[in-house]
Parts: sequence; structure tokens; C-alpha cells
Amino acid sequence: MNKELNGNSVELLNEDKNLSDRSDLIRKYQKVRNFSFELCKSLVTEDYVVQSMPDVSPTKWHLAHTSWFFEAFILSKADPDYVSLHPQYNFLFNSYYVLVGERWTRAMRGLLSRPTVYDVYKYRDYVDEKMLEFLGRSSEEIYGNFASVVEIGIHHEQQHQELILTDIKHVFSINPLAPVYFERKVKIDSNIPKLNWIPFNEGVYEIGFEGKDFSYDNEGPKHKEYIESFMLSSRLITNGEYLNFMEDNGYHRPELWLSDGYASAENEKWSAPLYWKKENSKWYNFTLIGKQIVNPAEPVCHVSYYEADAYARWSGSRLPSEAEWEIAANDISIEGNFADNKNFHPVPLEKSNGKLQQMYGDVWEWTRSSYSPYPGYKTLPGALGEYNGKFMSNQMILRGGSCATSLSHIRKTYRNFFPPNARWQFMGIRLAKDV
Amino acid sequence: MNKELNGNSVELLNEDKNLSDRSDLIRKYQKVRNFSFELCKSLVTEDYVVQSMPDVSPTKWHLAHTSWFFEAFILSKADPDYVSLHPQYNFLFNSYYVLVGERWTRAMRGLLSRPTVYDVYKYRDYVDEKMLEFLGRSSEEIYGNFASVVEIGIHHEQQHQELILTDIKHVFSINPLAPVYFERKVKIDSNIPKLNWIPFNEGVYEIGFEGKDFSYDNEGPKHKEYIESFMLSSRLITNGEYLNFMEDNGYHRPELWLSDGYASAENEKWSAPLYWKKENSKWYNFTLIGKQIVNPAEPVCHVSYYEADAYARWSGSRLPSEAEWEIAANDISIEGNFADNKNFHPVPLEKSNGKLQQMYGDVWEWTRSSYSPYPGYKTLPGALGEYNGKFMSNQMILRGGSCATSLSHIRKTYRNFFPPNARWQFMGIRLAKDV
Amino acid sequence: MNKELNGNSVELLNEDKNLSDRSDLIRKYQKVRNFSFELCKSLVTEDYVVQSMPDVSPTKWHLAHTSWFFEAFILSKADPDYVSLHPQYNFLFNSYYVLVGERWTRAMRGLLSRPTVYDVYKYRDYVDEKMLEFLGRSSEEIYGNFASVVEIGIHHEQQHQELILTDIKHVFSINPLAPVYFERKVKIDSNIPKLNWIPFNEGVYEIGFEGKDFSYDNEGPKHKEYIESFMLSSRLITNGEYLNFMEDNGYHRPELWLSDGYASAENEKWSAPLYWKKENSKWYNFTLIGKQIVNPAEPVCHVSYYEADAYARWSGSRLPSEAEWEIAANDISIEGNFADNKNFHPVPLEKSNGKLQQMYGDVWEWTRSSYSPYPGYKTLPGALGEYNGKFMSNQMILRGGSCATSLSHIRKTYRNFFPPNARWQFMGIRLAKDV
Amino acid sequence: MNKELNGNSVELLNEDKNLSDRSDLIRKYQKVRNFSFELCKSLVTEDYVVQSMPDVSPTKWHLAHTSWFFEAFILSKADPDYVSLHPQYNFLFNSYYVLVGERWTRAMRGLLSRPTVYDVYKYRDYVDEKMLEFLGRSSEEIYGNFASVVEIGIHHEQQHQELILTDIKHVFSINPLAPVYFERKVKIDSNIPKLNWIPFNEGVYEIGFEGKDFSYDNEGPKHKEYIESFMLSSRLITNGEYLNFMEDNGYHRPELWLSDGYASAENEKWSAPLYWKKENSKWYNFTLIGKQIVNPAEPVCHVSYYEADAYARWSGSRLPSEAEWEIAANDISIEGNFADNKNFHPVPLEKSNGKLQQMYGDVWEWTRSSYSPYPGYKTLPGALGEYNGKFMSNQMILRGGSCATSLSHIRKTYRNFFPPNARWQFMGIRLAKDV
Repeated sequence: MNKELNGNSVELLNEDKNLSDRSDLIRKYQKVRNFSFELCKSLVTEDYVVQSMPDVSPTKWHLAHTSWFFEAFILSKADPDYVSLHPQYNFLFNSYYVLVGERWTRAMRGLLSRPTVYDVYKYRDYVDEKMLEFLGRSSEEIYGNFASVVEIGIHHEQQHQELILTDIKHVFSINPLAPVYFERKVKIDSNIPKLNWIPFNEGVYEIGFEGKDFSYDNEGPKHKEYIESFMLSSRLITNGEYLNFMEDNGYHRPELWLSDGYASAENEKWSAPLYWKKENSKWYNFTLIGKQIVNPAEPVCHVSYYEADAYARWSGSRLPSEAEWEIAANDISIEGNFADNKNFHPVPLEKSNGKLQQMYGDVWEWTRSSYSPYPGYKTLPGALGEYNGKFMSNQMILRGGSCATSLSHIRKTYRNFFPPNARWQFMGIRLAKDV
Repeated sequence: MNKELNGNSVELLNEDKNLSDRSDLIRKYQKVRNFSFELCKSLVTEDYVVQSMPDVSPTKWHLAHTSWFFEAFILSKADPDYVSLHPQYNFLFNSYYVLVGERWTRAMRGLLSRPTVYDVYKYRDYVDEKMLEFLGRSSEEIYGNFASVVEIGIHHEQQHQELILTDIKHVFSINPLAPVYFERKVKIDSNIPKLNWIPFNEGVYEIGFEGKDFSYDNEGPKHKEYIESFMLSSRLITNGEYLNFMEDNGYHRPELWLSDGYASAENEKWSAPLYWKKENSKWYNFTLIGKQIVNPAEPVCHVSYYEADAYARWSGSRLPSEAEWEIAANDISIEGNFADNKNFHPVPLEKSNGKLQQMYGDVWEWTRSSYSPYPGYKTLPGALGEYNGKFMSNQMILRGGSCATSLSHIRKTYRNFFPPNARWQFMGIRLAKDV
Repeated sequence: MNKELNGNSVELLNEDKNLSDRSDLIRKYQKVRNFSFELCKSLVTEDYVVQSMPDVSPTKWHLAHTSWFFEAFILSKADPDYVSLHPQYNFLFNSYYVLVGERWTRAMRGLLSRPTVYDVYKYRDYVDEKMLEFLGRSSEEIYGNFASVVEIGIHHEQQHQELILTDIKHVFSINPLAPVYFERKVKIDSNIPKLNWIPFNEGVYEIGFEGKDFSYDNEGPKHKEYIESFMLSSRLITNGEYLNFMEDNGYHRPELWLSDGYASAENEKWSAPLYWKKENSKWYNFTLIGKQIVNPAEPVCHVSYYEADAYARWSGSRLPSEAEWEIAANDISIEGNFADNKNFHPVPLEKSNGKLQQMYGDVWEWTRSSYSPYPGYKTLPGALGEYNGKFMSNQMILRGGSCATSLSHIRKTYRNFFPPNARWQFMGIRLAKDV
Repeated sequence: MNKELNGNSVELLNEDKNLSDRSDLIRKYQKVRNFSFELCKSLVTEDYVVQSMPDVSPTKWHLAHTSWFFEAFILSKADPDYVSLHPQYNFLFNSYYVLVGERWTRAMRGLLSRPTVYDVYKYRDYVDEKMLEFLGRSSEEIYGNFASVVEIGIHHEQQHQELILTDIKHVFSINPLAPVYFERKVKIDSNIPKLNWIPFNEGVYEIGFEGKDFSYDNEGPKHKEYIESFMLSSRLITNGEYLNFMEDNGYHRPELWLSDGYASAENEKWSAPLYWKKENSKWYNFTLIGKQIVNPAEPVCHVSYYEADAYARWSGSRLPSEAEWEIAANDISIEGNFADNKNFHPVPLEKSNGKLQQMYGDVWEWTRSSYSPYPGYKTLPGALGEYNGKFMSNQMILRGGSCATSLSHIRKTYRNFFPPNARWQFMGIRLAKDV
């Protein structure tokens, strides 16, 4: 990674540099583990149990699964005598690692009343105790073998922290009692800053991760791509702009849509972003901070790839490729509206500075790139090889992180991916144009 | 109800006789309401939330719905100013009463984390307080108008008490941690008492309920039926006998099955009663008192109508009609293994007395009669008319109550009904034969 | 069969009496086989191939299956050296006789382009030749063993002749080119004769078939039933009357419907009988004689049991039981609008004669009786035992035959049966009332 | 199109050069239209009607739809007074052009017995007559406006000729009578020529179509891509090699598969290529020339993208990207086993020449590239814009044509696309490797 290009992420680099330093890793481990706990503070026991659709997992499952990850990939491998807290937990809390063994069916995670929430917290304590012992006292050789896997486990837990937020949002959204996750006041503002087009030159660019710090395997290897000239919209598309698309009959004009997208919109009866609902001819938005009137200045959120693509076509532009996004992000410091800010919802941009804004945080930005391996990509050996590589079909790339992502989790090269009809993540729209 | 025919149910009669007596009704109301509470004693919060299949409802839903029933059919009707504890509860806890308004989708009852278990108990307290006020202080006229509806509400709650048991059994059964509802030791005994055939003469019989005591509308009117001579098996079919059917390849011989039944068995992959599982070539039975080895002497339980019918054909007999069952029950006192006994599972018959045994309790007995109206049947007016009548298609009649039924709930004329592929109730087999 | 009770069916009796007479049986065989051919005269090759829904079979399948029946149950049993025209025909043309072997999946009958229509007619010729040889030249012993099965085969073919008509009607109905099966002019008449209520006394009646003539096993044994007093509507319900139900919002008033029925109506979007379609605020009816404006005087047709039941409830009456129908039919001669008349559609009743009318022909009359065995019922041994008995669940009884039934096929005791949501047969409504 | 690069396709160039020359276009039109007729010579009427799965269309639908295309996009646009042969044909034979109007549901194309095959041929004659009139006599201006659309229509018909073959193969394959489309003898040979790896250098390449001759819109614009060094297998993978993968348990090793792919393989019970069936421990292959023992030397065919991808992973290589394929095809002349050869099945490579072989014809070659727009891609205006662009999600690119493709239809830049689980096209495997 080129220092000039990333001057602004120096702190992160420093934080990651001394991976071999045990106390640093312990500190990071504890910080992230505690954050999971903190995110659940406002939940009551019943909230931890429910799975409101197959894509959603119960909160207690997330809490247990992230602990199981450390057990399955570190504790039980580093110590052949390691005994889990319960013989069934390996079966119950494995997500999709076929090579680790049989799993409880994903769509049935909400059918389990036991282990209880209390049991799950006990399980977390048990794993934490064993992990701290491992991090503090294992031999240099064993520590060396597993330190990078601990790093993966920490980032893995951060991914599930994002899911805890998006999943509980869905659970609450379908409930007629409309529970509020986090009390916060919001000022509605219809003042939308100007959208500028930022140009980039054609040429051969280097794309993908290289370096010693942590990254997922799918971010590399670094490789060259030839990119034609393009322009990127200076900011995210807002609710107000998206409403124009809706009012221009956007959801019922097949010529604006991909064929699969229009079919999805019809089958799933989409007529607005997920969580929007019209009442007495006004649009409301269900959010983690309660139901609120749709805020025109806020970045639009919870739209599928198909909706983002149709919006772009309607507006006479297109979605960026992931390479274009990465090139544009080259000089942008990683800062923005992240989970750390505890807004738990996108926030309006106050004013335009004439440059690229909102590249990080707020909402994941759909790209037109389908998720596929970079030239020379190799999966990790063993079960960890299942982490990323096996999902490289029928998914689209998203970039930049969201208001539910942790700041320390994101990178310029970070490739998030979801099926094109997914909507329950904090997903939004940035536009691109050919020159 | 004719005293000669029912000499043995005198105690019940006495209990029901003074319906007009408010203190009696209060006592009955309180007793039944308390029993719901008692049945939930061993549950933890998470257990109340889960819906393990569409037919199952979460325990907290049962507790709330039975309270809603008193609100919807008595409190809000008797007092136009009545205010429920929450404006959404009428929507959330209506089951299938279309005329009362919109309802939350049945198959999605397990997706609601709120109201919490605590909220639901508060709701029960609220309704109890209002009901006791109503029962104690309402004017004679209003009391007179609604006393019989209170009676329905009490029996309605008893039905849901049975469902609380059958539903939590299903919830626990799919859980790899195999929770135990009620700790109890069982002695395995393979000693099966002799099965005798008890004959009954042909002739015109009176069938159905008549009298002043409580009954559901579908039990009447009393009417005449001509019944040919028949014989009834003296006792229920046991696990041991059912195992013989299984070992004789019963599940894979289409000539023994109804066509729809064989299709169900194939689609749902039946090869034993629900809750049976073979491990290391031994059959185990998941029960409310834990997993136990299949007890040959116990009445077989959790079989569908199709399995009961196939078993009967295999054994060279048939299932009784509901009229035959009722004729045979004429001189039998209502006693047996009910929920009151807290066995929560069928128990073996100790020895044959040469007469009809196990007619009440243990397991509901499938009849070959489909659920249809008796000659002259009229539904109740208004929404209560939806209680029974609208289900008179595609269901089969069961008779006699089970180990999950309350003794005070059952009658000789009681008509339970379930679709022929239902298995999760305590359902078993008694045989009949033509002479 | 009691002569007094059935004086009017003497002709039928004479026809059936000499079952042992080979030439009679040959004549019946040929007549029925030729009628299949005649029914297909107006079809083009492509019409024989299509299966427009799972319940429908292609015409060529009906033609082949009815031939296969004679092969499977007579030719191949009577002569161990019998060779079919093609080794795969037993697999392709077995319908549901599990004991005869594997079958081609029912819902996939329309996926087979081969054997061609020409091949199927060759197959029919082949079977006819072998059958005539068998009927004319087999030994007395063998003939004696199989003569009654030939009789079943003849009636079986008549059943499929009805299906050829109902199925090709469905095939044509979904086609935007609206093919006409049979050219015939119809006079639209809104003059609906008076509906009278014909009373019958309570008492013990004998129900079911007894005698030497042909009947299906499910029509017996003759047995006693006690029937309360009842009244039957003198004629069938007409389109005009059914329109009143529709205009009174009948399809959207759940209190008129069985619960399963209302769900079916919602899921399958019923708002009128099958084949009715509103165009420019007028109702049209697709029929075998072309699209025509709905004729108010015609018996209503192609309604499900659920619709018939809802109509009856709306009109303040109910559907008859099958025993009531049979008692009422006791003195009625078998005559009416049958397939023999080649109307291929119900016809209006010209005027009321104050007695029961339209009991036979026009439309099958839904009864409230679910299809179940009569007391003492035994299935035939072997694969023929699958003919009727295994369908005795989830079906309702219909009586009286339709405009697609052959006159010589129907009997007073004839029990037709279909699932309560079936609509594509010629099914209509006669009402009953308690006294 | 660069002459040097394509010296070998000079004949095609000459054929295309004089697009403006009416007689040339008439000749091409007639030749292609006749070829459709020729492909159907061996079919009987019933074969034209059947749709054996939703992806398949009946032959008569293909014949009608390709005629409708000329009507919808040329005849009715060029002449406002144009009248189709039947007012319903626009509804029945529109495939997916939403902007042209409502369409008959795709999955129900096999439910239509009318129009008959005869009617469809009459329709073709009608359209041909009108088209020839148009091509010969229209004004220069109108001709000029539509000549390129005629060209599209011709290539469109060629695409459907390929589908006629693949679809009738599927129709025949499910038929127990196993019809043969085309009689031809095959010599089984297990002699598999050596597979070499042909290297290509990294660099910036031009990809995509540019020129005056016909191409689809999705093949352009020509643009630059940076490609890392790679190697391509010199020939297609054979049945024999694929059998090794199968025998190495390839279908049951999840680590070899994409996650969606393994799920497809489980759900659809894949254990071999489509049309393979094991009988008495030998593998047979259903082909258009009859059932034959699996030929080890033949290119493997009818595998999905998922299977191709798993095979590649198993073999230690990967699939090529579409750009890699196109770069490699740069110097290859377009020749091979096409529909013109009337083999209607892939043929074994006789021997290796040390260079790239089998790049064209035999089987479409799966690439790892998902179907997405090239930089600068614009769809055609109007309904023709629906031809390609709206399918750019959830599909993978295939290159090179197959034994069912016409030689004059294929190009170096031709981008075929199908969902990754599609198998019924002639789809096979060429491998690539990083250097």
C-alpha cells in the first residue's frame, strides 16, 4: 500500500503494524468483543430470539457464532484437548463452513429457544477466557501460527456487528409495536447540496490490496486494470431525489430495469425502498431510531442493486464499477458516519465542498461489478478458504461501508457483496458517467 | 343430558349446574386462568417466543389470545367504553375471527419479539381484573347476556392449554438440546394386556348433545342415527403393536393406505410416529418428560389419521365412526389420564378388565368420520359463529380427550377435529370391526 | 335391487341382465369404444397432446389409458403369453394402480409428444382386436372369471369419456383463440321456472346398491340410515340465481364460507364460476359450443363445493346429504341431458311440473357428504381394489350425472367424488332444507 | 473488423459487405428461413407442441415467434396499414418485448394446441410473402431505415434455430420412447489427444466489436482491457476427463464448488452432465442421434457453469475470462463443427496440432465472466433495446458457438449468455491458467 495515497489512514496502519505484539492484539480483541455487548444493551431477552426472514439471524445466534469462530479456527486447532462449553454448539453455531462439519439449517435459526440468551453470554465469557489465555500464554510458535486467524476472527465479529444492527432493524420493522432500538432526535431538512461530477482519466491503474496489514483474501492480489475515462457523482443520491424517480413512475417502467430486477420488483411488490411506508399520502421510514417522516436530504438507503441500477438509468447515468470506485477513493481519508458514531442511520450531507464526499460510511454503495475473483486470486487453505471465495457468483460488489460498519473494519479495497435483490443492509446509490 | 346415561358424570353436572351462580363462575374462571399460569412454570422467557412450525403458536401468543377472547367477546361488548391495554392487541391476538377484524398472519406469530412475556402477563392481569369486576358487579341483565359466553371463554382457554402443551412439545422436539418440560421417571414395560372386541347391537341411537350444561354448538342437535352392529377394541393400540406394523413394512405398502395418506407419508417422509427416532437400531420417543426408549405397553401416540387408518387396515379392522364411539361411551365414566394428572404423556394400561378401557384421556382417538354438521345444526350468531362451523371440511373427528386435556373440558359428545395429516396433537388409535 | 323402487330403470336392467351373454357384452364393448372415437371427431392432432393443468389429461392419454385398462386387467391376466403393442405402454398408461407397477408422473402427461395420436389409435385397434377375440373365443371358465372386469372396463371408459369432454373444455378455455368443440346454437332465455320445496319424511331408509347388475364397489353394501325430515329444491340453481349471490357480494363475505373455501377463493382468485369472464360489464361463459353470454335460465355449472356451500348458506338453505339425494331419487326415472344428447352443456328447464326435476344429467349435484365407505364396505381384491377405496378422504360426493355423462353409465346409487375445490367438471347446485 | 485478423472469414465478409444490396439480403433471408424448415423435417406434428420444461419452447412457437419478429419490428413499423394474419398472434408470439405489449406467459407455451402446426406454417408463408415484397419493393428510404433490423431478424432466427435443436433434444430426452432426431452412426473412441497449454502475454488489448458488418449491440463498443499473462488449454475437456472428475467424487466435494453451485447440484440432484444416465454400471448419453454409450474422446457437453467451474478447480486450473478467450481467438479462423455440418453433437478431436483447437463449434465455452455491459455500452432505442441489455445480471458469458449454431451466425466477439445453472444448451469446458 502506497503511503502517499493513504496518508490519512496512518493511524490504522500503526494499529495494524504490530500484529505480532500480543498486547495490541489483546486490546483489539477485547475492544471488538465489548462492542458486540454494547450493541445489545437496549435489547430485551425476546429480541435476541427472533428470525424475521431467512436472511436475518437472531441476535443470540450472532453472539454465539462469533464466539464459535474463535473456537473452531483457533482454540480447538491450537489445543487438541480443547473442550467446548457444550458438545452441540459446534453444530448449532457453524454458519456455512462445510469442512468444519454439519450445521443447523440457516432458515431455522429462529426456531431455537435454547440455548438461552444467558447461556450464550456464558458461552462468550468462556471463549473470552480461553482466548485471553491463548493470546497471553501460548508458545511463540503456536501464537505465530494463529495470530492472523485471530485478526480474521476480530474482523469477522465486526461483520456480524453490522448484521446485528441490520437484522434487529428488520425484526423490529415487521412488528406492529414498532420498537425503537436507539432514541435519537433528527431534524428533517429538505436542503439538498448540489451534485457535481468529478472526472477521472483513463489509463492503467493498480487495483486491489497489497501489504502486511490485515485484509480479506478477496481484496487481492493487486493487479492492473485499464479504465476508460469516467466521472463520479460528488455525493450519494438522497431520498428527495429518489422520490422524484418514484413520482416519475420509476417502479412501473420496465424499460428502466434489468429483466430480473423488474421481475423481483413485481414478485416482491416493491414500490419504494425497504422500510418506507405511505400513510395518509406521506412517506414514512422505519429506522433504528424510530419511525420518521422520509427525510429528503438523507442518503437513500435499503435499495436493491436493481433499484439502484434503474434509478441510474432513469437519471441518464449508470453505477460505477468497483475499480472506478477504488480509483476515486485513492485520495480520500476513511472518515464518515460509521457505527462508532452511533447514529445508526445515514445522515444528510451538510454542504458540498466541490469534491468527492460521503465515500465512506452512511451507506454501502452498489457497483455494477459482479463479485468475481481478481486475476491470480487464491483462496486460503482449509475451511477458512470458504470465507469468501465460494460466494463468487450471483452477487454484486458494494463499497465504502455504512452507518452500521465499524470505522476500523473498512478499507479502500474492501469488497462487500450481496445478491442484487438484497435490501436489508444499509445500501445506497452513487452514480457514474462515461465521459 | 339424561341422568341414566350419564350417572357417572354427576360431579361434572354439579359443577356446571349453577351457571347462573356468579361465585361459581368466578371460581371456575380463576381456576382455569391459574392453570394456564401453572402450565408455564417450567418455561424460560425464550421458550414463550418460538413458533416451530405454522401449526404451532408461541406460548405467549396462547396466553395473550385467551385473554383477548374475553376482551373481544365480553368486555368490549358489555361495555362500549372498554379500553384494551394496547390498541394493537386486537390485531395481534385475534386468531381467525374474520368478523372481529384484521389479524396478524398465523404463520408469523413467532416473528414477534414484542410484546414481551412480561407484557403478556400484565395483559392477563389487566383482563382478569376487568373480568372479575364484570363477573362480580355487572347488572343482572348484562351478566345474563354474557354468562354463557364466559363459559365458552373458559372452555376456549382449556383448549389452548392443551395447545400450550402440544406446541411446546414440538418446539422442544426440534431443539438439539432436547429440553425437558417436566421431570418424571417412567418404568418401561413390554407387558401388553389382551385386546378384546366389545360388541354393540344395531339399531337407532340418539347421538349428540342435549341439555342445559355447557357444550359447543357442533355437538348438537341431538338426533337419531341408524347404526349397524359393530365391535370396538377394548383398549388403545400400543407402541408395541404399532412396531409390528412398522416391522411388517407398513409404511411402504401402498395397498394399506389411502391415496392421500400414502402421498403424505412420502412427501413428509414418515416412517414412524412423530417424535420417534431410531438411534443405533433402537427407537426413541421424544416426550414432554424427556427422551425415552419407546415403551411397548404405552398407547401409540402422534400418528396421523392416515397412519391410524393404515394400521387398522393392516390389522384387518377399521377405525370406528364417531357415532359408534359415542354409543360405546354411553356407560363409561369420564376418568383417565388427563392434564390434571400431570403425566403429560399416555400411560400403559395395567391390565384388562374385559370391558372398554382408556376411552377417556391418554390420546384422542381418530374416527373414520369426517367433520360435518349434524342434521339441524345451526352456528351461533355473529363472530362466535366462526368458532366451529367454518371448519367443517377436510377434517376428521377425534374423540375422548388426551393426557393434555383437562378432565372438566371433555364430554361424551365432544367433537375434536383435525386435518387427516395432523400428528402433533396426542392422537392415537382404537379399532372397530363389523360383526 | 328392488323392482318397485326402480321400475323406471327397467330398460337398464334388461340391458345389464344378460351379462353372461357374450354377444351382449361384445355389443356394449363396441358401442362404448366407438363413442370414444366419436367424441374426438372434431379434434385436430395438436388438441390430443396438451395438458392445460395437472388435473387435466391429454386426449390421447385418455384414449390410450382406457385401452391399457383392458390389457392390464384382462388380456395380460387371462393369457400369460399376451404381449402388449409396446413394452413402455404399461408404464406410460397406468394411471394410479400402484400394484400394477411404476407409472409416468400424472402432471407430466402433457410433456410426451410420442406415442403419436396415430400410434394411440393403432394401440386401440390392437387392444380391440385382442378383446374381441377374448370375448368371442375364450373358454367358459376364463370368460366367467373376467366378464365382470370387462364390465368395469366399459364403465371405466365411460368415465374417461366424460373426462375427455371436461379436459378438452379446459384446454380450449385457456387458449386465446377460443376453439369451439361442437357447433350448436343456443337461445338465451331469462325465464326461470319457480323453485318448489319437495318434502320427505324422516325414518329408516335403505341406502346403497344391491343386485346383480353392474355397480362400483363403493355403492354398496346396501345398508340402513336414519334420515330426519328434509326438503329438496325441485330444480337446479340457475345462472341467474347465482348472479344474485355474486351481486350480493357473495364472494367477499367470509361469514358465508367454510374457512378452507374462503382461503381457496382468495388464493385462486375466484369471483365467478370457472369459465365465466366479465367483458364490458357483461358476463360471458366459455363452453364447448363456444363463448356465449351467460344464460340466466341455465343451471349454474363449474362451481366448487365451497361455492355451492356458500351459495346455499347465502340462500338460507344447505346442500343435501347423499342419502337424502338417493331417497329423493327413488321414484325418478333416469333421463335428462346426457352426453348422448350431444348438447355438451346444461340446458334450461322449460317449466316446472311441481315435482323434482333435473335430478339426472345437466350437472353433477354437490352433496354435503364427504366420500367415505358405507358400513361393511370391502374393496375388491388386487389392483382393482385401488379403483375407488383409496380415495376416501378429502373428497365430497356428487350425484346424478351431467351433460358429459353417458346415460347408460349412471345409477341412482352412483357416487361420484371430487375434492371440494374442484371446478372443471360439470358441477352444480341443488339445495336442501331442514323441515 | 480487421482483415488481417480475419482473413479466413473472407467469405462471410463478402456475404455481409453489400448489406445495401437488396438481392443479397433477400438471399440471406430466404436461406435462413429455409433452414428453419429444414431443421423440422424429421418432426411429427405432436413434436411441435410440447414444452418439456419452462426454459424450453415448443417448436411451433419458435417458428411463429421468429416470423412475428419480422412483423413486429419491420412490417408493422414500415407500413402503418399492415395487418397480421391473426389479431392474437402479436400476443401469442411476443417473447419478452415489454414495450411491444402484453405477452402469453412463457412457461405456458406448451399449453396451446392452437394455432396448429399447419396454421404456423401458413403464418410463416404469409410473413415471407410480405417480407419479400418489402425487401424487393419498398422505397429506398424505408428500406434504408429497416435493412439493419432485417439483419437482426435473420440473426435472431438463427438463434432460435439453435434453440429448436436444444429444445427438441430436451423434449425427446424425457420421453421413455427415446425418439431419434437424426439418424447417424458414431464410432466410439477413447483416444484422447494431448492437452497443451498455450501462453499469452500480459498487456493492454482491444476487446469488442467494431466495424460495419453485423454484430449485436452487446459486443461493443470496442475498448481497452489490461490482461495479465495467461495460458489456455489447447482443446476442450472431454467426456473421459470429466469421468475422472466424477470418479474422484467431484460432485460430492463442496470445497470444489461455488456455494450456489453446490446448492444447485444438491437441489437438482446432479451427478453427471445433463442427459447422462447410468445403466448396469455403464454411462449412456442421450443425444439428437439417439442414445449412445458415453464417448470418452468427445468434448463434454451439457454441463452448467457451476460444473465447469468445479471441474476447473478440481483440475488445478480455472475457466478463462471472456477477454482472454477473445484475445486467444484473434488468429483463429471460424471453422468447426456447426449446425451446417449436421452432426448435431460434438465430435472428438482427431489429433492435437500443438495449437489452439476447437475454439469454434462443438460446444459453447463457459467463461468466468459475468454478463455485463462494456464501457460505453448503449442499448438500441425502443423495444429492440430489450434484445440484450436487460439481461445483464445473473448470467455468465459463453463463447465460440456449438454444433447447434450456424457458421454464419458466430463471431470472435459474439457474447452468448446463460444463467450459471443452465445445462440444456450445448455447453462445455475449456480451461485457463495463470502463468
